[in-house]
Amino acid sequence: MNFLSKETTAAYLDAGVWGSKAIKEAKLFGNVKVVASSKETHYDRIPDSYAVPDDAVYFHYTTNNTIEGTQMHAIPAVNIPLVADMSSDILSRQMDFNRFDFIYAGAQKNIGAAGVNLVVANKGFLEKGNTGIPSMMEYRQHVANGSMLNTPPVFAIYVCLLTLRWLKSIGGVAAMEMINDKKASLLYNTLESLPVFHLPVAPQDRSLMNAVFTMKDPVLEASFLQACKEEGMVGVKGHRSVGGFRISLYNALPLSSVETLTALMKHFASKHG
Amino acid sequence: MNFLSKETTAAYLDAGVWGSKAIKEAKLFGNVKVVASSKETHYDRIPDSYAVPDDAVYFHYTTNNTIEGTQMHAIPAVNIPLVADMSSDILSRQMDFNRFDFIYAGAQKNIGAAGVNLVVANKGFLEKGNTGIPSMMEYRQHVANGSMLNTPPVFAIYVCLLTLRWLKSIGGVAAMEMINDKKASLLYNTLESLPVFHLPVAPQDRSLMNAVFTMKDPVLEASFLQACKEEGMVGVKGHRSVGGFRISLYNALPLSSVETLTALMKHFASKHG
Repeated sequence: MNFLSKETTAAYLDAGVWGSKAIKEAKLFGNVKVVASSKETHYDRIPDSYAVPDDAVYFHYTTNNTIEGTQMHAIPAVNIPLVADMSSDILSRQMDFNRFDFIYAGAQKNIGAAGVNLVVANKGFLEKGNTGIPSMMEYRQHVANGSMLNTPPVFAIYVCLLTLRWLKSIGGVAAMEMINDKKASLLYNTLESLPVFHLPVAPQDRSLMNAVFTMKDPVLEASFLQACKEEGMVGVKGHRSVGGFRISLYNALPLSSVETLTALMKHFASKHG
Repeated sequence: MNFLSKETTAAYLDAGVWGSKAIKEAKLFGNVKVVASSKETHYDRIPDSYAVPDDAVYFHYTTNNTIEGTQMHAIPAVNIPLVADMSSDILSRQMDFNRFDFIYAGAQKNIGAAGVNLVVANKGFLEKGNTGIPSMMEYRQHVANGSMLNTPPVFAIYVCLLTLRWLKSIGGVAAMEMINDKKASLLYNTLESLPVFHLPVAPQDRSLMNAVFTMKDPVLEASFLQACKEEGMVGVKGHRSVGGFRISLYNALPLSSVETLTALMKHFASKHG
């Protein structure tokens, strides 16, 4: 709504449910060129070869796909403004924000409580945005009003402050990235070592935030879910659209939780392997 | 965006800052007929004679004007769908919701914490809404998804639950209305009885939620503000666009606060009257 029009084209990468929804919404405002899609393989990977047209007004991608468990580990090299939905992995790893012209992220994964969003924009890019759109939807008006165009959701913002203070106190994003790497390595290495489990995602595209796996024998899925439940581990079921299991490893999850889970996995595999 | 188009006209009442902003936004989507305005007298009253065209797709008004301290005490009699912004007086008094086709209200005055809105819609009216607009802006999609089209702001919703339980426990909206009437009567009667104060709003349109007043001698305003501050009363300064003072009497404010304030007013008047 801000950066696309009927006379222009935006380039999008279709690598998951969120990217696919962004494409659907963008088509309401202008022309959309989908540069590549992994939909045919159920988004089990990030498309790895595609050309981004230099005359598109921006290139949009989703950095991490929560449902499918994939993540873009490198920032795409493009010659046009880069726009990213970082909702589910912002502040989980070091990123060169200077490479982006526009970043948006819901707070509810790694920043704070649901109900507020972080937007980081290149001022020059913002200035090229459309006018004549509703005030509440026009990013420039939010900037001009110091993020108080509307009554701010003060509690949600306060939780962000507390979360950011905590993040700073443990050493910032660099320290967090090391912890997140440990968590994901432990989990993926455990899953790979136990033949009872199956990892559907292409290894190079595995997400450090959301690990998706299934059981080689689907009959065992109910038993594993029950074993988790008995140990007080909830929320491990996969999204209904992909099935199996999904372990979310957001910043708030300590390494000790992954240690407990992987111990259970080993125990389960020894009984059912 | 949902109910107006370039081919249709919506009727609006211009009785304050919020209604005026709604008019500005509506003009982006279609034709707007402003049936009456009190802008020339600085919104010191609700326009009292106007005709609402029967061929407009809806009539929009703001039930209470927070900045100017005016309130519509009766529901307008119109032959077309009635749309109301009830943000600042919802749940403060009994209203026949059946008279409305569409009601919207930010939670942050009488419902709960900032960051969530209440929308009450006539299903038949909703069905006539526009399609091809962004999903997040289409009310029907929110209904179809059980108000979970987006990740719900759970804390803000939880505060609404607690506030509504409290409201129910004291006797509901009927009991609240009696308390609000007492608060407003005490405040306005006190102000009218003390010549040092001036009430700029037309008596029949005075708001039961936001009482606006000035000092007959503007020189005394700083002294009164200081007297309030010394007694621990803050937030009494009027909006910068109208000056003077504004006492907000939302549901959460107890009668005892108004008693304390009016006692101070009497004491102040006896010294400066």
